[in-house]
Amino acid sequence: MVPKIYVTYNEVHKLCQESADRILAEFKPHLMIAIGGGGYVPARILRSFLKKPASPNIPIQAIGLSLYESLPETMQPGTPGDVETAGTRVTRTQWLDLSSLGEMSNLVGKKVLIVDEVDDTRTTLEYAVKELEKDVQIASERMGYQGEPTEFSIFVLHNKDKEKKGHLPDRIENGRYMAARTVGDVWICYPWEATDIDQHDELANKQAANGTTK
Amino acid sequence: MVPKIYVTYNEVHKLCQESADRILAEFKPHLMIAIGGGGYVPARILRSFLKKPASPNIPIQAIGLSLYESLPETMQPGTPGDVETAGTRVTRTQWLDLSSLGEMSNLVGKKVLIVDEVDDTRTTLEYAVKELEKDVQIASERMGYQGEPTEFSIFVLHNKDKEKKGHLPDRIENGRYMAARTVGDVWICYPWEATDIDQHDELANKQAANGTTK
Repeated sequence: MVPKIYVTYNEVHKLCQESADRILAEFKPHLMIAIGGGGYVPARILRSFLKKPASPNIPIQAIGLSLYESLPETMQPGTPGDVETAGTRVTRTQWLDLSSLGEMSNLVGKKVLIVDEVDDTRTTLEYAVKELEKDVQIASERMGYQGEPTEFSIFVLHNKDKEKKGHLPDRIENGRYMAARTVGDVWICYPWEATDIDQHDELANKQAANGTTK
Repeated sequence: MVPKIYVTYNEVHKLCQESADRILAEFKPHLMIAIGGGGYVPARILRSFLKKPASPNIPIQAIGLSLYESLPETMQPGTPGDVETAGTRVTRTQWLDLSSLGEMSNLVGKKVLIVDEVDDTRTTLEYAVKELEKDVQIASERMGYQGEPTEFSIFVLHNKDKEKKGHLPDRIENGRYMAARTVGDVWICYPWEATDIDQHDELANKQAANGTTK
């Protein structure tokens, strides 16, 4: 059985808090893109800690991505889409508004922090980076932009130390990627998924007391 | 001095949990629109409790709205924009993607739950409802849509019982509006804004023990 780890809201809060200084120093983001729904909570908390006195908040944009992984047991053997080649497909449920307001052109030349809760197979993050870079490229060309390049960086609460199906550009993987915690290939129970939050916290506290997490 | 109330993450979680049954029964939302950044956390929590077994998650779309209120002390007396008429302006920092993916047309004929953390002056909510209804109307006409009307409803964690600057359509105000708690005109300290979450929780617990909240 895959071991579970229970993460409380206050732990999520502190993971964001302790990461904020490094994010400010190393990535200096102008804006965040939260991958929904998992990225919403960390992005909102991070915003509090990334705010500098007398400066406005760092804006958060949200995109929605759903990862459909064809499960081996639902596949017919011998059909296309077997375990090797299968079956991760990312679909957009929300993208940036490309209309009159020009959100995409707002990204051009900026430092953009992509926020999600967990880096599991890396498929979603690969998709997000590729598609955002492509759209920014198109917007840059349309604008005739000649300035500083747009820089994407990534923050996740947890990175699972496992073989990844998705891959990130080297410049991100080496230096523009931050995980507050690296964990094994465990099942992470985030508080916003708990049906009984008191019990969830008890289990988290028991793990902390046993030294099985942190 | 305006009294402060401290709300913990677990309280926010439980406010969403206890509201979910009524939301499912009365509003039956097909999707949520979270007003960022305050709506992100409650929307993500709500999604867990609105999910029915064997059904997909209810999608969350995010919009970004900023409320600028001209403060009386920054105004010149006698100039346009005095206290009476002044000074609330809502600007969009993110809107729905109206491009090829047709997010707006996805709203047509649907039951849409707008989620924010607090209903203070109601200005932001009025803006959101008006603009969404306008855009849905345009999309409906383009599609030649003849079916069930699109229905917006609202969920907030806290409604401040005070005179409102913004106004909602009657059909929303009477029956399609839900606040998990109604409070006085207090300063609500949400956990995602806390710089010291342990101290924040202590203050919240002290208030609960004194019976000054709930």
